[in-house]
Amino acid sequence: MRRGAKRARTDRAELHATLDAGLVCHLAVVVDGSPRVLPTGYGRRGDTLYLHGSTGARSLREAGEVCVSVTHVDGVVYSRSMMHHSINYRSAVIHGRIRHVEDPAERWEGLRVITEQLAPGSWDHARRPNRKELAATAVLALDLTEAAVKVRTGDPGDDAEDVAAHEAWAGVLPLHQSWGTPVPSADLIAELPVPEHVLRRS
Amino acid sequence: MRRGAKRARTDRAELHATLDAGLVCHLAVVVDGSPRVLPTGYGRRGDTLYLHGSTGARSLREAGEVCVSVTHVDGVVYSRSMMHHSINYRSAVIHGRIRHVEDPAERWEGLRVITEQLAPGSWDHARRPNRKELAATAVLALDLTEAAVKVRTGDPGDDAEDVAAHEAWAGVLPLHQSWGTPVPSADLIAELPVPEHVLRRS
Repeated sequence: MRRGAKRARTDRAELHATLDAGLVCHLAVVVDGSPRVLPTGYGRRGDTLYLHGSTGARSLREAGEVCVSVTHVDGVVYSRSMMHHSINYRSAVIHGRIRHVEDPAERWEGLRVITEQLAPGSWDHARRPNRKELAATAVLALDLTEAAVKVRTGDPGDDAEDVAAHEAWAGVLPLHQSWGTPVPSADLIAELPVPEHVLRRS
Repeated sequence: MRRGAKRARTDRAELHATLDAGLVCHLAVVVDGSPRVLPTGYGRRGDTLYLHGSTGARSLREAGEVCVSVTHVDGVVYSRSMMHHSINYRSAVIHGRIRHVEDPAERWEGLRVITEQLAPGSWDHARRPNRKELAATAVLALDLTEAAVKVRTGDPGDDAEDVAAHEAWAGVLPLHQSWGTPVPSADLIAELPVPEHVLRRS
């Protein structure tokens, strides 16, 4: 993404809002000296980001230093010149070392916030993890101290000559996300009304 | 994301379709031994992915081995148990070494496909790069040989006991993306109709 109109922001509220609005983060790790990136769910409580995974997944088991990004694309920026085309976006990037959470209460809370990020209301509606499921699940924590959020909004930043030439349209085409109609699972053994937390998800 | 319902696919058409449907990839590199991930635009021609950036950006200048991910979230999978909650998604992951493109014709073609990925139609509508802009722009290529695509679709994979218990709703809440109404730039010196390639973008 081009430099210029975008701004690095240190505001914690904006960082939290950017993280809270996402479903998937991109987690980068180094394995045998090589970069690996994988999309995965997450949750946040205060200034801690929680991730989870199978205890058998090598990239998570060995994760030490990581870099995590959560990105929202808000629109495409059409400029008079090809080189000033851009994207309006909000992007959080976090650097840090993974902490493997061992304390049972924090593991439970980590799983709760990961669930509530993915599916708000499900922690109270669905069956919670049992002993066996907990044993198979790694809960990882990442401190948000080294986190930054970048936001680009608004019009293109065209060169003055291109603005004056007036030979191409310029503006923003917004990109929106919306929830569709819930699709009940084919293996429901009898009809069940769609619960409010799914039906009214905003 | 949970294992099980998701499938690794090697089909080139599905890989290409997943890449072609995206606006932003997440590019992971190793800098001084540490992982870095950044969201950035891209384009594809055949089995080559093109990226660009400022010639001054260290992470791009020094990029050797990289990992790139393009992820689409298609819906949230609500299961009877918390641990089987999941996401329906399409995700392409590419490993490889960055090639710095020096050939002028390939650099031009790389910039064209990056533009057309971000803003189809803009290569013919907007002013193309001039000599100075070209000199300031690095064009990078990544071979798609080591690329895989994973796709998860459909219902949750609940345990049989949870299906039989019938105590929680299960199904999928689809997530849709749509283009909004174009917003003309405030600095247009006179009215210009919104061009068809913006107005009719699908």
